[in-house]
Amino acid sequence: MRALVTGVAGFIGSHVADGLLRQGWDVMGIDDLSGGTMVNVPKDAKFINRDVGLDLDDLMAEFQPKVVYHLAAYAAEGLSHHIPVFNYQNNIVATANVLASAYRHGAKHFVFTSSIAAYGHPRKSNSDAGGPQRERLTEDDVCSPCDPYGIAKLACEHHIQAFFDYYGGPTYTIIRPHNVFGPKQNVSDPYRNVVGIFIRQAISGQPMTIFGDGQQTRSFSYIDSVAQCIAASGWTEAAKNQTFNVGGDEPMSVIELAKRVCETVGVDENIQHLAPRQEVLHAHADHKKAHQLFPEIHRSPVSIQAGLKATVQHVTENEIPTPTHCPSAIEIKDKLPPLWRDGA
Amino acid sequence: MRALVTGVAGFIGSHVADGLLRQGWDVMGIDDLSGGTMVNVPKDAKFINRDVGLDLDDLMAEFQPKVVYHLAAYAAEGLSHHIPVFNYQNNIVATANVLASAYRHGAKHFVFTSSIAAYGHPRKSNSDAGGPQRERLTEDDVCSPCDPYGIAKLACEHHIQAFFDYYGGPTYTIIRPHNVFGPKQNVSDPYRNVVGIFIRQAISGQPMTIFGDGQQTRSFSYIDSVAQCIAASGWTEAAKNQTFNVGGDEPMSVIELAKRVCETVGVDENIQHLAPRQEVLHAHADHKKAHQLFPEIHRSPVSIQAGLKATVQHVTENEIPTPTHCPSAIEIKDKLPPLWRDGA
Repeated sequence: MRALVTGVAGFIGSHVADGLLRQGWDVMGIDDLSGGTMVNVPKDAKFINRDVGLDLDDLMAEFQPKVVYHLAAYAAEGLSHHIPVFNYQNNIVATANVLASAYRHGAKHFVFTSSIAAYGHPRKSNSDAGGPQRERLTEDDVCSPCDPYGIAKLACEHHIQAFFDYYGGPTYTIIRPHNVFGPKQNVSDPYRNVVGIFIRQAISGQPMTIFGDGQQTRSFSYIDSVAQCIAASGWTEAAKNQTFNVGGDEPMSVIELAKRVCETVGVDENIQHLAPRQEVLHAHADHKKAHQLFPEIHRSPVSIQAGLKATVQHVTENEIPTPTHCPSAIEIKDKLPPLWRDGA
Repeated sequence: MRALVTGVAGFIGSHVADGLLRQGWDVMGIDDLSGGTMVNVPKDAKFINRDVGLDLDDLMAEFQPKVVYHLAAYAAEGLSHHIPVFNYQNNIVATANVLASAYRHGAKHFVFTSSIAAYGHPRKSNSDAGGPQRERLTEDDVCSPCDPYGIAKLACEHHIQAFFDYYGGPTYTIIRPHNVFGPKQNVSDPYRNVVGIFIRQAISGQPMTIFGDGQQTRSFSYIDSVAQCIAASGWTEAAKNQTFNVGGDEPMSVIELAKRVCETVGVDENIQHLAPRQEVLHAHADHKKAHQLFPEIHRSPVSIQAGLKATVQHVTENEIPTPTHCPSAIEIKDKLPPLWRDGA
C-alpha cells in the first residue's frame, strides 16, 4: 500500500508517517520545511521538498498513492488574523490543489486533518446565539469558525465533501484534533502550541508567558492516539466519509498546565501574564465517535502527566531548533501581541 | 462620499456603480476585465484595470474609500467544480486581500456580494439530513454549500464577520443575491446565467440548451432592485453587520423561462435537452429581511416579463461580445459538460 503524507516534516505528519511505516506501507512524504524539520522525517519514507500549493502531478504520477494524508498547513491559529491572505492561500487553495492532483492520479482515499478551530463559537442551531460554549463539542454542532485558520479548515471540509459528492471519489476521512502535544513538536515556534512554548521557556529559564489570567481551559491531547487514529483512517472501512473529533478528555487550565510543565522540567514557577488575546475561553470536544470507530486505539490513553514527561525528555535529549518565524510578512499589524512583533 | 467598487466592469458591479454615481458619490472602479467589459464601466467612475488578488494598497492610499463594494469574483458556479484552485484563489484569497487593504487604509464599511450558493443544500439544523429543500431559504438556515463557488462565498462571509469581531471594523453588509439578470449582463459567457445564454441562443437562431428536463425552478431576479439594495447598503444604518437575501419572488422552471425568452425575442421554440448536471433542483429565497431593510426599493418590483423585455432590447441594441472563456485552465476534465469543453 502506497501513502502520500503532506506535512511529513511537521509534528503530526511525522508521527502519522511513522505509523504507516510500522504497518508496512510505502510512504512518500512532502514538506516545504517552512514549519517542519528534516529531523522529523522518518528515514524509511521517501522525501520530497515542495510547497503543496505547487504542481504535484509529477509526484502523484510517479508514486500513484492509494491514500493521501493531507497534513501540510500553516497552523498558527491566533496569528491567522494577521496573515489572512497567506492563511487562505496556504490552507484552502493548497488543499484544493492536493485533492485535485490526488484525484487525477487515482487516489482512492483522502485523509484530511482539520481542527477543532472549525467549530469556532459553535451553536446547536442557527437560532442559538452562540458564544463561549458550555458543553463539549460534538460533530453535530453547527460550525461557526471565528478566525481565518478555522474558516479555512471548515472550507476545506466542505470542499472535500462536495468533491466526493460530485466526482464520486476519493472517499475521505476528516479529523478534528485539538491541542496536540508530544515528542517532535516544534518547541521553538513562537506562535502556537502552548505546551511547546512552556517547555522551551521552562528549559531556557525564561518566564512562562500566559495570555490573560490563564483560566482558559483546554483538553491537551497526547500525540500517540491522535496520530494512530489519523493513520488508521486509511484502512478503517467505518471511517470512510466520516468526520470526527480526536484528542484528550482531561480538561486543564493554561495556568495549571504551566505549573505541571515546571514540575516536569524541575524548575520553579515563573509566570508572566500578558494582555489577554481574543480566543475561545473553554474548548473541549466529545470523542464518542472516535472511540466507537477506533476502540483499540483508545483502550489505554496516555495521561497528560505521562505525555509531558515523554515530551520534556525528547526536548532535553535533542537540540532545540532555531525559532522559525512566520514565512509570510505580517499583513495586519494592529492588535498583534507584542510577543509576536519580533518576527514581523 | 468615496466608494471603491471591485468588479465594476461586470454586470452587477456596473449597476451598483451607476447607483452610487446617481447619489452623487465619487466612485473608483477596479476590474481586470477577465469577465467584464469596458462598455459596462460608468463614464463618471475612475477606472483601474487590476486583478483584485494583487496589491491594492497604492489605490486605497490614494483614493481613501469610505465604503468598499466588493463584487469582483469568478462567478461560474457550475464550472467551479472543474477549477477549484482558481476558484478559491479568485474568490476567498482575493476577498481577504481586498478587505485587509480596505482596513489598512481606513475604510469604514465593506459591502460583500455573496450568493444563494452559500446555502447549498441547507438544513434547519445539523440534525436535519439536508437534501433538496422544500421551503424558501431564510437567513437563519444552516449553510451547507455543495460546490466550490458556494464554499468560497460562505468562507468569505465567515472571514468578513470574524474580521469585524477581531478588529472592530469595518462594519459590513453581506448580500446573497440569486439568478440576477438584466441589461449589461454578459450574454456570451458560456458557463453561467441561463437567462443570458437563452437570449443569445434565441437571437442567434441556435437551439436553447437545457441541462436535464428543465423542471428545475429558480426565481429569476431583475437587476434593478438587486443593485439598488447593494448600493444602499453603503448608507443604510439598519443594514450594518447584516446578512440578507435579495432577488425575485416569482418561481419559474427553466423550461418556462426558455419559452418566455423565445416569445420576447420573437422566435419559435427550439429546445435542446442536454444530460442533467448535478445542481440544486429548486432554489428559492425568502426576502422578508431585505423588504424590511429597504421598503422603498421593493415597493414596485419589475416582473420577469418586463425585465426580459428590457434585457432583450439592450442585447439587440448592442454588439454581442465575443465569448470569454474561463481565464483558468480546466483543472479536472471529468464530468465536464460537453458544451464547456471548447473553452477548456
